[in-house]
Amino acid sequence: MRILVLGGDGYLGWPTALHLSEVGHQVAVADNFARRGYDFEMGVDSLVPIESLQARVRVWRELTGQDIGCYVGDLCDAEFTYHIVRDFAPDAIVHFAEQRAAPYSMVDRKHAVYTQVNNVVGNLNLLYAIAELNPEIHLVKLGTMGEYGTPNIDIEEGWLEVEHKGRRDRVLFPKRPGSFYHLSKVHDSHNIEFACRIWGLRATDLNQGVVYGQQTPETARDDRLATRFDYDAVFGTVLNRFVIQSVLGKPLTVYGNGTQTRGLIELRDTVRCLQLACENPADRGEFRVFNQLTESMSITQIAETIASASPDAVTIEHLENPRVELENHHYNVVHKGLTELGLEPHLLSDTLIDSLFEITKRFAHRVRPEAMMPTIQWRKPASVISN
Amino acid sequence: MRILVLGGDGYLGWPTALHLSEVGHQVAVADNFARRGYDFEMGVDSLVPIESLQARVRVWRELTGQDIGCYVGDLCDAEFTYHIVRDFAPDAIVHFAEQRAAPYSMVDRKHAVYTQVNNVVGNLNLLYAIAELNPEIHLVKLGTMGEYGTPNIDIEEGWLEVEHKGRRDRVLFPKRPGSFYHLSKVHDSHNIEFACRIWGLRATDLNQGVVYGQQTPETARDDRLATRFDYDAVFGTVLNRFVIQSVLGKPLTVYGNGTQTRGLIELRDTVRCLQLACENPADRGEFRVFNQLTESMSITQIAETIASASPDAVTIEHLENPRVELENHHYNVVHKGLTELGLEPHLLSDTLIDSLFEITKRFAHRVRPEAMMPTIQWRKPASVISN
Repeated sequence: MRILVLGGDGYLGWPTALHLSEVGHQVAVADNFARRGYDFEMGVDSLVPIESLQARVRVWRELTGQDIGCYVGDLCDAEFTYHIVRDFAPDAIVHFAEQRAAPYSMVDRKHAVYTQVNNVVGNLNLLYAIAELNPEIHLVKLGTMGEYGTPNIDIEEGWLEVEHKGRRDRVLFPKRPGSFYHLSKVHDSHNIEFACRIWGLRATDLNQGVVYGQQTPETARDDRLATRFDYDAVFGTVLNRFVIQSVLGKPLTVYGNGTQTRGLIELRDTVRCLQLACENPADRGEFRVFNQLTESMSITQIAETIASASPDAVTIEHLENPRVELENHHYNVVHKGLTELGLEPHLLSDTLIDSLFEITKRFAHRVRPEAMMPTIQWRKPASVISN
Repeated sequence: MRILVLGGDGYLGWPTALHLSEVGHQVAVADNFARRGYDFEMGVDSLVPIESLQARVRVWRELTGQDIGCYVGDLCDAEFTYHIVRDFAPDAIVHFAEQRAAPYSMVDRKHAVYTQVNNVVGNLNLLYAIAELNPEIHLVKLGTMGEYGTPNIDIEEGWLEVEHKGRRDRVLFPKRPGSFYHLSKVHDSHNIEFACRIWGLRATDLNQGVVYGQQTPETARDDRLATRFDYDAVFGTVLNRFVIQSVLGKPLTVYGNGTQTRGLIELRDTVRCLQLACENPADRGEFRVFNQLTESMSITQIAETIASASPDAVTIEHLENPRVELENHHYNVVHKGLTELGLEPHLLSDTLIDSLFEITKRFAHRVRPEAMMPTIQWRKPASVISN
């Protein structure tokens, strides 16, 4: 298949592009390097050094003989979006190209507006480009489990069969997202479902859990193929941050009482899920949703897992939760769709954690420890205008 | 109370501002005149001539001695939004200031993107301004019944009690909107609910039915206080358009088989609903939703009502439906909240239709009949880029 990976320079986009190339697909990536720009803005950097996209693609070609096409531009620029869809003529488009950090969207008004405009407009442009140029293209869109929030009922895969006053319907699962970023993905999902309904597009919305891990078989072939590894309080996901804190001999920082439960997925499973979704497209007119996670754990359980796997003594510190989220909540997520397509999960009890400790030790000298402390407060709106 | 009416130059915003002033509130309006701009773009105009906002405010002061404050600017300009909230220091903000026509949002990609950015960003700026400057301010936001679509279950007021696999929760009512415009309001509702949850804002979301009518006791005092009356296929709502078609001796144009059912509300009830919502604010942290309609009718029933009220012979013509929407669907809407606050509905069987015929006859020479035919197709995505 011909697969276009949007956001193909990012933490997940790059390993996905390599994996899809490895298993025999014709792959191109597009990126505007916004993610690298956020690093400059925040004064942080990937723990693991990463090469330029051009160098990455060159190394991959040297090692495998496989070409990965490369487009540089912004989906909010509709001419660019139409150009890449027309020029590459993909069968499937994997769409990672959004601002993807909840804390970044909560920095202040400007960051909230930026996140929603960037994500919603890029996605709208893409929907129109597909609908006009080739409605057969399968859109594989990255959503997040954070769209659902923590309802007191089981979380189904995107749709819910409801019975109400003796009548029944199948409705979009009601969402209660936890940040302006998570809200942007809810907006996207509604827009995509509508595009499937009126234009007969085919789309798969992947509501992904918290991703951990840093290597896939493809990225591990050469240091120059490494993907990013974020440890800071804005872009670092919780498990990765805990590993780094343990290596540095710092306490693992749990927000609140730690009973908040999250879905998890390992990086190698993410790239495999993307492959499965692309190779088994949704039907024309179908808005298909998968919950892309392999297990659920509380933040405390994650911290304890890291602590017990760590070669050194580790302490756990509870910080006042900068977010507004429920503790001691129900959390039971249905995630059958991808397993039925053939996903064989790597669970956290696998050996991967050891490799994460090794990687972290190797690059520990690059850490700025102060970047791990949360500074962005959900409860206090911030703007550059108010004073 | 001090009440700021955003979009106070529009079809509903202006009569609302007058009514709130009439009943004794201190009122200011803000507008960027986007609505008047759409007329130039589309080559249409209000059937009833309307004065400039400045003239309207001056006439109201001459007739009543009441001042209505006037701000000219755009909510997407955050400095303007913060300025008016700080300068007028309202107790309540009525937010009409959004692009409000489904067909306009479906013209092409640019109009879809414009509608969602304009509506979502203006509303986000407003949420931040309220949260930072005075979280006691009650936000009264105009939503639309079109957010719900036509589910096969009864439509509750914004929230739904669900039971699923033996567990219960109260969730946001699942939405299935019918255009990129309706979607923008769904996005707004999600953003507002979140702002109530994290910042403790107080908000009322009014999911309004199709409004008809052209006069309130206040606007009827002087021709120069008239509000707009749109008959074109883009901005004209269905009942108003049918009245004009009947006066012109044209067939009433029903889309599809006409079994599509919609909630309706008369203009005098709209302004009264806004008064009731402002005078009975939501609690801090509460996201309160009212379904703002007084009765439901199918498009065919509306056409037949107009036909039988018309002094002349009237025919009904069925056009291929340019929209994607269900026919022969369930439609039962709960709308108790505003009645409980004291709303006494004017129903379509009242005498109002006669006055609509009179107004229309008086200005019938201003009609451009070709503007009443739908040209915007839901099923065909349009862009200026694709060729």
